[in-house]
Parts: sequence; C-alpha cells; structure tokens
Amino acid sequence: MTDLKIVDVVITPVALKDPPLLNSSGVHEPFALRSIVEVQTDAGIVGISEAYGDDATLALLHQAATAVVGTDVFDLNELSRRVASAVGGSAASSPTELIGTASHDKTVAQATAAFEVACYDAQGKATGRRVVDLLGGAVRERVDFSAYLFYKWAEHPGDFDVDSWGEALDPDGIVKQARRMVDRYGFGSLKLKGGVFAPEEEIEAVKALRREFPDRPVRIDPNANWSVQTSHRVAAALEGELEYLEDPTPGIPGMAEVAAKTSLPLATNMCVTSFAEIPESVRLGAVQVILSDHHFWGGFRATQNLAALCQTFGLGLSMHSNTHLGVSLAAMAHIAAATPNLTYALDTHTPWKSEEEDVVLGGGLTFTDGAVTLPSGPGLGVELDRDALAKLHEQYLTCGIRRRDDVGWMRQVHPEWTGKRPRF
Amino acid sequence: MTDLKIVDVVITPVALKDPPLLNSSGVHEPFALRSIVEVQTDAGIVGISEAYGDDATLALLHQAATAVVGTDVFDLNELSRRVASAVGGSAASSPTELIGTASHDKTVAQATAAFEVACYDAQGKATGRRVVDLLGGAVRERVDFSAYLFYKWAEHPGDFDVDSWGEALDPDGIVKQARRMVDRYGFGSLKLKGGVFAPEEEIEAVKALRREFPDRPVRIDPNANWSVQTSHRVAAALEGELEYLEDPTPGIPGMAEVAAKTSLPLATNMCVTSFAEIPESVRLGAVQVILSDHHFWGGFRATQNLAALCQTFGLGLSMHSNTHLGVSLAAMAHIAAATPNLTYALDTHTPWKSEEEDVVLGGGLTFTDGAVTLPSGPGLGVELDRDALAKLHEQYLTCGIRRRDDVGWMRQVHPEWTGKRPRF
Repeated sequence: MTDLKIVDVVITPVALKDPPLLNSSGVHEPFALRSIVEVQTDAGIVGISEAYGDDATLALLHQAATAVVGTDVFDLNELSRRVASAVGGSAASSPTELIGTASHDKTVAQATAAFEVACYDAQGKATGRRVVDLLGGAVRERVDFSAYLFYKWAEHPGDFDVDSWGEALDPDGIVKQARRMVDRYGFGSLKLKGGVFAPEEEIEAVKALRREFPDRPVRIDPNANWSVQTSHRVAAALEGELEYLEDPTPGIPGMAEVAAKTSLPLATNMCVTSFAEIPESVRLGAVQVILSDHHFWGGFRATQNLAALCQTFGLGLSMHSNTHLGVSLAAMAHIAAATPNLTYALDTHTPWKSEEEDVVLGGGLTFTDGAVTLPSGPGLGVELDRDALAKLHEQYLTCGIRRRDDVGWMRQVHPEWTGKRPRF
Repeated sequence: MTDLKIVDVVITPVALKDPPLLNSSGVHEPFALRSIVEVQTDAGIVGISEAYGDDATLALLHQAATAVVGTDVFDLNELSRRVASAVGGSAASSPTELIGTASHDKTVAQATAAFEVACYDAQGKATGRRVVDLLGGAVRERVDFSAYLFYKWAEHPGDFDVDSWGEALDPDGIVKQARRMVDRYGFGSLKLKGGVFAPEEEIEAVKALRREFPDRPVRIDPNANWSVQTSHRVAAALEGELEYLEDPTPGIPGMAEVAAKTSLPLATNMCVTSFAEIPESVRLGAVQVILSDHHFWGGFRATQNLAALCQTFGLGLSMHSNTHLGVSLAAMAHIAAATPNLTYALDTHTPWKSEEEDVVLGGGLTFTDGAVTLPSGPGLGVELDRDALAKLHEQYLTCGIRRRDDVGWMRQVHPEWTGKRPRF
C-alpha cells in the first residue's frame, strides 16, 4: 500500500432543528450546530467525521486543517503533533459548555478528534476494514443506548417548527415521554436530564420512572446544578434507585464530598473531561463512572486510553452525547463496540433529531431494542448524502446561530435568567 | 479485504548461547530459551513473534494456540478473550523470574502478547504497512537503547563456548566492558545490572562509570536485592548520579519507603508488572518510572495503555529486556517508536548474543550511535531465516535446559547459594 496522505480538508458547518429541551443552563436553541469534516487523500479516498459547529470550533478546525495537510492518515501521532502545534497555546472556549475549565489540552484534544476519526474512516476504506476492526475488533455487534429524557417546552417562542413530543414539565410528562421513546426505540435504560426544576420534583420524576419501568436502570443528570448539601439530600432520597448519579455538583472536591456519603455511583462528563483531571479525581474518590466522548477526549485512541485508565482504577465507563447527526452516531457505535469495559448504555440525542434531517445516506443507523447494529461497510460504514448535507449547510447559513447559547435563549422567555450554577 | 483468519499456529522453541552474566538470582545459564510463534492465516500471510521458551510458557502458548485458531488477525479483542478463556484460572510461573507474584492476569497477558504481536505482523503484511504505522505512527525513526552492563565470569564452568568479553568483577572490569560496548554500538546511556556484590562495590562501579562517561546517564538495577535500609544508603551515596534507580528493594511498600527519602527517580519492572499493581503504586508514590515490556504487559496495545497511564500520572516510561533474538528486538523498536512518552533509552541484551546466532535474515537490526533504525518493510520488517531457526531449534533440543534457573547454575559453583532476596 502506498501512503495515504491528506491533500485537502473540507469543513462544512450545518444546522439541524433542535427542540426546546431544558437543562441547567437554559434551553436548547431552535437549531443546533455541527460540522462535517472531510479528509481527502492523495489516493482519492475520503474520510469523514463530525464535530461541533460553533464559530470557535470552526476557527479551530480550519487552523488545524492547514497543518494536517501532508500527514499520512495512519500517522495519528504526527496528526496530533501537528494539531497541537497549530493550535499553539490557545485554550478555546468549549462548544459543549459543560466540560469544565478550558485548557490547551482540551482544545488540542477536540481538534485532534475531528481529524483522527476521519483518518480512521479513510484507513478503513483503504484496507476494506471497519473502524471497529482497526480499533481492536468488535466485542459486541450491537451497541446499547439509553433513552435521553428532557424536561421541555411544547415549542420555542417565535416562528419555528414545532416538534411532535409536546411539553414535559412534571413527572407525568417525563413518564409519557419515556413511554413513547421506549415504545419507539426499545431503549433498555433511561436518563433524565435534570437540574431544571426543584430537586424534589425531579426526585418524584425519577421515582415515577422507576414505578413505570421497574426493569430499566435510571440515571439523572442535573449538570452540577445542585450544591453539595442538595446533592446529599437527593442522593439519600434516591439510594438504590439509580444506575448512577451524574454530575450532581460542580468540581472534583464537591463530587468527592457527595461520593463520601452515598452508595450511588457518581458519574461525570463535567469535572473529569481530560486526562489531567484524572489523578485528583482518583485520589479523592470523586467519581465512580466516567462518561467518555471521543469528540472532546481526543478521539478513538484517547477513548481507548481512557478505557484502560478506568479499567485499571476500577472506574465504570459510559458515554456522553451532545446533539449530533449520523456520522457521530456511527463513530460512537464503533468506538463503543471496540471497548470491552464500556458496559453502560450510551447517551444519544438521536430521538430529538428530526427524522427528516441527517447528513448520511438513509438517515443513519437506526435503533431496535434500544441498540444500533454496527454497519458492515468499511470505515465508519456511513456515507454522506450530498443533497442532505447541502440542505443542512443552507440551514446553517440562514439560521443566524453561530454559537450555542442556552442561557441567552432562556432569557428571551425569562429575562431574569442567569444560568448560574448551582441553582439549587 | 477479506478476513485474515488464523488457520494454524507453529511454535518453535530455540536456545541461544548466553554468557555467564551475574545477577541477584545467580548466573545466566549457558543457553537462554526463546520461542518463535508463527501465526498462519487463510490468506497465506504469516505473522511472527518471539516469546519466552521455557516449558511453562510453551505449554501456555500451545494451550492458547488451539483457542485462537479461527480468529481474525484484526480482532485483537477476540484474541485476548480466547486466550483468557483457554488459560482458565491458571497462574503460570513466570519465565522472567523477576516480575513479582504470579497471577491469572499476568499469565493471560503473557500469552496474549505472543499472539498479538504476530497478528500485528500479519496485519502489516496484509496492508503493506509497518507495525509502527498500525500503532499510530512513528514519533521517531530511530530508537535509542542503553548499554546493558553485567558483572560476569570469564566463562561458564564446564564444556561451553567462551564469549569474548572476559570477566568483569569490579569497577575496572565494568568500565572496560562499558568502553567496549560503547565503542562498538555507540550507546548513549549505561545500565549496570547490580545486586551482585556488596552495595559499596557497586556504588564504586557507578561512580567509575560516571567518571569515565560523564555525558552518559547511568542506571543501576540490583533486582530488589537490597533492604530498604541498604537502599536508603545507596540512594544517598548516588544522589545526582543516576538517571534512575531500578528496583532497589522488593515490593511496592518497600519501594515507597525508599522513594520517600531520595530525589532519585525509582524505576521498576518487578513490583509493578501488571495493571492491577498500578493503583497501589500510584497511591503510595512508590515508583517514578515504569519499565514496559510488551512480552509480559500483554502486547503492543497493553503497552500503549500503560504509556497513557504513565502520561496521566506523571510517571516516566522506559523498557525492560530479557535475553532475546531479532524478532523481539524489532517488536520492541516498533512499539517504542510509536510511543511518544517512551523517552528513556530501552534495555536490550543484544550485545550479549553471539553475532552468529539469530533467527532473522541478516542477523537482525543493528545499532549505530546506540540506536536501531526502524526497518522499512511491512509488519515487523524482519523475516525468519529458516536455516538459522532450525539450527537454534536443534540447539534447544540438545542443550538440556527447559526452564531458566540462574539459582541452580550458581549452585554448581557455590553450593551454598540460595538466591534469597534481599541479600544486602
């Protein structure tokens, strides 16, 4: 095989419709931003990946794109070296908003991931192998996901498309939403995005879910919107009821305080989101489950490293999700399938995506019994739908949104809103 | 690309001549045992690796070989699952003698490594890629090794070939040995195998090396033959003189006691030789450098996981060596070249091998300026020399040695010898 050198990179920002999902920051805007990265090689093979689509990320990706031209798609060490060098000392603001303090390492990890995934897709296409095979082989051909439940409004204020899910502002609404999502996709576990209403209301929602779905593990994630004291109270009320309690309170020391007084495993995708944060967390016993996310941990190889760290230190491993399209869904499935100790059902926002909107042919992987089956084709196994990509890019151009701002959108309805955490 | 399924495994034990090198256990026997593993695939491609050659390892490899037939060479997760299943609950005695308490995990790791390396070689041959490329790309095309200095006798008692190095039983002998080794191979750093003579004599040997080679970092490795008190004394005497102090004393708690009172980094390939031993070591701050060794850590992927752990916890990473042939040398070079934070010169026993003896065409990679250049061919980049392999296998059949027994050989000269550690 000859080299497979990167000769060009095409980055296409896209916008997809997003329902008014509530969280501790505020509310999802009417459109969510993503970008599609295409890595073109001298052999004519093109590898694809999906990344964030906010202005800061796009600037970062363009900066890195220039640097990675000339790199062989197998030379991932060179790729990350060039990205790190191109990014320089900058610590970009995080597009995910919720992964803690910005750092140079996190910025490099995020940019590296976008290109590394595309390089793996190209490697797979060149060798006729699936990405999962290049990552060590599938330990499972089907990857379980969880039902991601949100408190939500019926619609965004203003002239926007209205989703079909209706409002969910109390335990009844959450249970109805869960029932519809489970009936439709077959999810075997449930995750409630909390931190929206008073903790007592959310405790009731969890208990209502447990009554309605006694066989399904339930998680709640208030995105660090509870004080340590409040977290103690909620944890005590939910002892034995949760698969894990996700980011009840901000910061590693706070999480450690909560962990010390509960038997519930604490999970995080906020206070431990980079390798530099692991030692303190291990030392303090702050978290028992880390939510991986190849988009911000640095790609597939970094996720495998994280998995080895979790295995070594007896930590559980799950997976975080931001709003995403079908390229990311395939990438998440491949790395999860290659990771033996990723034993929790993964998060995904897929049910909140309009079925008419995606960038991959056929609309992307589908859920049956709560799982996706790994695609059989080489690389990631999904192909870009050029017309669909053009349409979502056009939507990006016209939607007017250039960075995620859940706080700002909430202020349109509640001008006094600050998004300050912890609120409870 | 179609599957590359393993259809057969051939394991060939070999014996190579070994000089009378002294260590804390006793003395190297006149022959060292290795084995060459050939993994044959349905595509006709054969992947090779090199492992230990003692009876226990050969039994283990044969047990695992039956189980891995049918596995795709890319499906390394399935490979290790099958090996683990085939090995069952057994904790084989360790052929390296010095990697601590036997465990099921270590047994699985050792067997997995032998097949995993051969699978990578086959992957490389199938894709036209070097193993280093399949491991993420070469961060360096040349890999530095250290001069591995041993106290030694001039010859083994009995009717055996005599090596050309002569005896080295005091500082002068060690300095002369180092001079010859440096002149011949260009090594830029020096490692003294200690734990043989009284610590004061070995301190003098280190100081003599430092005087003679002031620009070359020096390490000493007494293989845990010193008590904590003795280790304190030696460490104090050598403050500022060593690149690292390797395994002065047995066990993680003992190492932690030594580490607490010295500024010298402590290194190990004895008390932390599996992932299960890392948490205690980190918690106690017992070691500052871990010596990887793909042969017993579980292969290339395990070594990369170890590298990530070291990076995350601020530990240095170096590489251990047992007596080996040219397949292992190539494997060591590939994984080292793909590992950014493997910044120390690697150990190798190559200079102690007869130049007439190897199993690879051309005699294996050669050292210039203390480094080997990665071979350019696909896979490991070395090919078996069938005649040489047959000759060393014949030597295995006739040499009479079936397991490493440095203690027993020392007893032939010193009947009172016990090999008990720590001796000083």
